[in-house]
Parts: sequence; C-alpha cells; structure tokens
Amino acid sequence: MKGELLYEGKAKQVFQAEDKLDQLVLSYKNDATAFNGEKKAVFSGKGKYNNLISAKVFAYLRDKGVASHFVRSLNDTEQLVVKTDIIPVEVVVRNLAAGSITRRLGIEEKTVFTPPLVELFYKKDELGDPLINDEHALLLADVQPEELESIKVMALEVNQHLQTFFESINLTLADFKLEFGRNTDGDIILSDEVSPDTCRLWDKDSGAKMDKDVFREDLGDLLQVYDAILQRLEAVV
Amino acid sequence: MKGELLYEGKAKQVFQAEDKLDQLVLSYKNDATAFNGEKKAVFSGKGKYNNLISAKVFAYLRDKGVASHFVRSLNDTEQLVVKTDIIPVEVVVRNLAAGSITRRLGIEEKTVFTPPLVELFYKKDELGDPLINDEHALLLADVQPEELESIKVMALEVNQHLQTFFESINLTLADFKLEFGRNTDGDIILSDEVSPDTCRLWDKDSGAKMDKDVFREDLGDLLQVYDAILQRLEAVV
Ligand SMILES: Nc1ncnc2c1ncn2[C@@H]1O[C@H](COP(=O)(O)OP(=O)(O)O)[C@@H](O)[C@H]1O
Ligand SMILES: Nc1ncnc2c1ncn2[C@@H]1O[C@H](COP(=O)(O)OP(=O)(O)O)[C@@H](O)[C@H]1O
Ligand SMILES: [Mg+2]
Ligand SMILES: [Mg+2]
Repeated sequence: MKGELLYEGKAKQVFQAEDKLDQLVLSYKNDATAFNGEKKAVFSGKGKYNNLISAKVFAYLRDKGVASHFVRSLNDTEQLVVKTDIIPVEVVVRNLAAGSITRRLGIEEKTVFTPPLVELFYKKDELGDPLINDEHALLLADVQPEELESIKVMALEVNQHLQTFFESINLTLADFKLEFGRNTDGDIILSDEVSPDTCRLWDKDSGAKMDKDVFREDLGDLLQVYDAILQRLEAVV
Repeated sequence: MKGELLYEGKAKQVFQAEDKLDQLVLSYKNDATAFNGEKKAVFSGKGKYNNLISAKVFAYLRDKGVASHFVRSLNDTEQLVVKTDIIPVEVVVRNLAAGSITRRLGIEEKTVFTPPLVELFYKKDELGDPLINDEHALLLADVQPEELESIKVMALEVNQHLQTFFESINLTLADFKLEFGRNTDGDIILSDEVSPDTCRLWDKDSGAKMDKDVFREDLGDLLQVYDAILQRLEAVV
C-alpha cells in the first residue's frame, strides 16, 4: 500500500500511496506534542486512537456531504486520503472559550461564543503558528477572498455536524482546529485529522476534559481518555 | 481652559475642558514608552513636538473632509478635542513592512503591501495589545459590523491623505496606528494622535528612520528628529 515517505510531521507520517499518485497514506504516530512542540511524550497506542477516531469523524462528515480527503481506513494506525496542497492556515472554531484565547484576550474559560468564533492561524512552526486576520491569510496563503470565505463557511458547517456527532457520545465540543487543502481539480477540501488531539471535548455530565488537554495540563491518563472516546463511538457508529 | 484630570495615559494627560462638557484638553507629556511600556524615557520638549505635529496632521485631515475629534491647538503642548468614547481597537495601516509584523509573520522589512494592510489590535495594556481579527473586535468592542467596515475604510482614506501629506516633506509613511471614538451623536470619528510616536516615517533620500523607532532602536537623538519633522512641516503648511 505504502510508497515513499514524503513528510514526517509531529503526529503523522505521510507516505505516497503505492498505486494512486494522487493519494497518500497517513500513518498516525504515538507522539504527543503541545505548546508548539515544547512539551513532548510518546504514548504507545495513541496513533491507533487518533487514526480510528479521525476515520469515524471523516466517515460521518462524508455522510453529511462534507468534501474531504478521506478515502478509507487501511488498518489500526493508517488511512488512505486524497493528496492535497495544504493551505498553511489552521482554522479554529470556538463554541466555548478555552486554551489560548482565554490568555490572549482575557476571556474567561467556558464563555459561550454565539455565533461560534472562527480564528485563523498561520501554520508555521518556526513562528509558533501566530494568529492572523483575513488579509494576512490572503497574503500568506495562495487563496482567493471567495475561497477564504467558503473555508470559513465549511468550518462552521463542520462545527454543526461535529457538535451533533459528539453530542451523541455525551461530549461537548468546545473548540477544534481544521486544515484544508486543494486537490488536483483545484477544489478546496477538508484535510488532516479531527481527533481528540485537535478538538476540545468535555464530558457532558462531569465536565471532565477528554482531549489533548489531559496531556497539556497533566490531568490523567491520556490513553484511557482516548480509549473511552473510541468505545463510546463504537457503541453508536 | 482645563478642568479636572480625567485620565493619565503613557503619552498624554486628558483633562475635562472647562467650558464645554463634550470637549477635552489633551496635554502631551514628555514621556516616551516602547514595547508595551517596558522601555521608558523622558525627553523634555517631546510633548511639544507631538502636540504641534499631531495638530498639523489633524488640521490637514479636516481640510480633506476626515471627521475627527480635533478642535484646535491651545498652546505648545495642549490641544482641544471632542470627547469620545474610545473604541478599544488600535487600527494599524501598513504600506511597507516594519516592526512587529516582520517578527510575527516572518515578512522582510520594507516588503510592500499592495493594497495596504489593515490590522486590528485590542487596546488593552495588561494583555500587551494583542492582534485581533474582525470577529474578536465585534466581541470585545461595542461596534457593529458595518461600523467596523467603515472604520477600516476611514483608516485607508486617512492613509491616502497621510501619504500625500508626508510625501510633501520628503517622508515615506511605512505604517501608522489610529484610534477611533464615538462622539455624543453616536458617530465614529478619528481620535487620539497622529505623530512620529504613532507613525513610521522614513526619509525619502537617506532612508533614515524619523520616528519613535529612533528611541526603540537607540538610533540617535529623538528630539532632533522630531524637530526636523516639525521644521519641514512648518516650511510647507
Ligand atoms: N490530504 C493531505 N494531503 C497532503 N498533506 C496532508 C493531508 N492531510 C494532512 N496533511 C499534512 O500532513 C502533515 C503531517 O501531519 P502532522 O503530523 O499533524 O504534521 P504537523 O506537525 O505539520 O502538524 C501536516 O503537514 C498536514 O498538514
Ligand atoms: N477624543 C478623545 N476622547 C477621549 N479619549 C481620548 C480622545 N483622544 C484620545 N483619547 C485617549 O486618551 C488617552 C491618553 O492618551 P495616551 O497617553 O496615548 O494613553 P495610552 O497610554 O492609553 O495610549 C488614551 O486612552 C486615548 O485613547
Ligand atoms: Mg498536525
Ligand atoms: Mg496612546
């Protein structure tokens, strides 16, 4: 299935798919990183959880009509995706305040954003993924104004779907990060991953954090939390 | 002329005007601060330069039809202005890259922005005046989406006028910061100051920095530079 290793990121290895030039194999690693790579650890089994959870999310989004890179799961840690030219803009959607925005703007944790807040960050590790505005995005990424608008609309649609999806397993979606890429037709489609590494998920009953914050804030056993999410998902989808 | 001291900022004291409730006396101090107040110094005479230069700028802008708080100069260090409810958003217009944007986004100094770039910062010293996007501005400041748009349009118009203005004294306007406020009628008008403290001005011949960067980067005698600007202005207006 796998051809050449094209890129190794913080969470995944990216391989050329052997038979199709326009497809990739994403291979999820066991590494956890936070605070722009300053905090690091390895959790054996983590790659499996992110791969299987992200696959379930993308399958759900496909059912809802969201155009994405997802083709199919290959095994516990790998999935086949459409190769895209990643737009170097991380799109964050926030329903409830948490993480960087609380410190950056002095907004209290759990403040509700109605409508949900969309933030853009320039995907550039050397610069620490800085917040950018729309004009910066047009300057730094190869996107047109209408495309940027449609990316934001897509992000808000994905938010609607993900809220319903996670609601079904008793989780509140506080915020999440998306990446978009351009396929060979020039269309912009949802790419990368959607997992507890890239979402903030709070248990609806206990309020407990069930995402990478468990690692960021040393709140407990990350694998146990990711396993709980996968189990809840397997019970409903 | 001056009534009660209402507020003391980093660069100015703000007094109630004695006879008119809806007017203020802005009294320019000799203090220079940079890097969010981390670097400080006093330059006796600086207040005069900022007051007189800002007054000339606002008089020019008034001629061009820009609605602002400026009423008139009172003396060397003081001017009478219309009291406004300051919108806590600093509006930065950039024609050429300099300062924070070069570090924040890795953009080389002197990179030309066509069209000029507009950035918003949340005016909040405790948070270090962070960059914000439009959605943050709507959340944090009491402004409507149409008002935010018109603030940006005004900022770009002011940019056109200021480019011509400074061009006439052989200076390139690299970037500048504006503040807007709401008057008692609810209209949003240009407020605060426009001076070498709030603009980046480069001599067209030598390229020399003729603004607060002289203080920020210890490039020479700040008062001499501000005096040169005032003299050039007095020769033309
Ligand atoms: N469909 C895709 N096509 C091309 N690249 C992709 C696709 N999906 C995700 N990527 C990229 O794969 C890389 C590896 O992922 P990850 O380990 O999360 O990297 P990073 O450390 O850069 O975030 C990232 O640069 C991500 O943008
Ligand atoms: N027309 C106005 N009405 C009310 N406040 C004003 C007006 N123009 C400027 N200000 C405010 O005056 C204060 C004093 O200026 P400054 O010393 O530059 O303060 P700061 O340190 O807050 O930047 C600032 O908060 C500025 O926003
Ligand atoms: Mg990543
Ligand atoms: Mg000020």
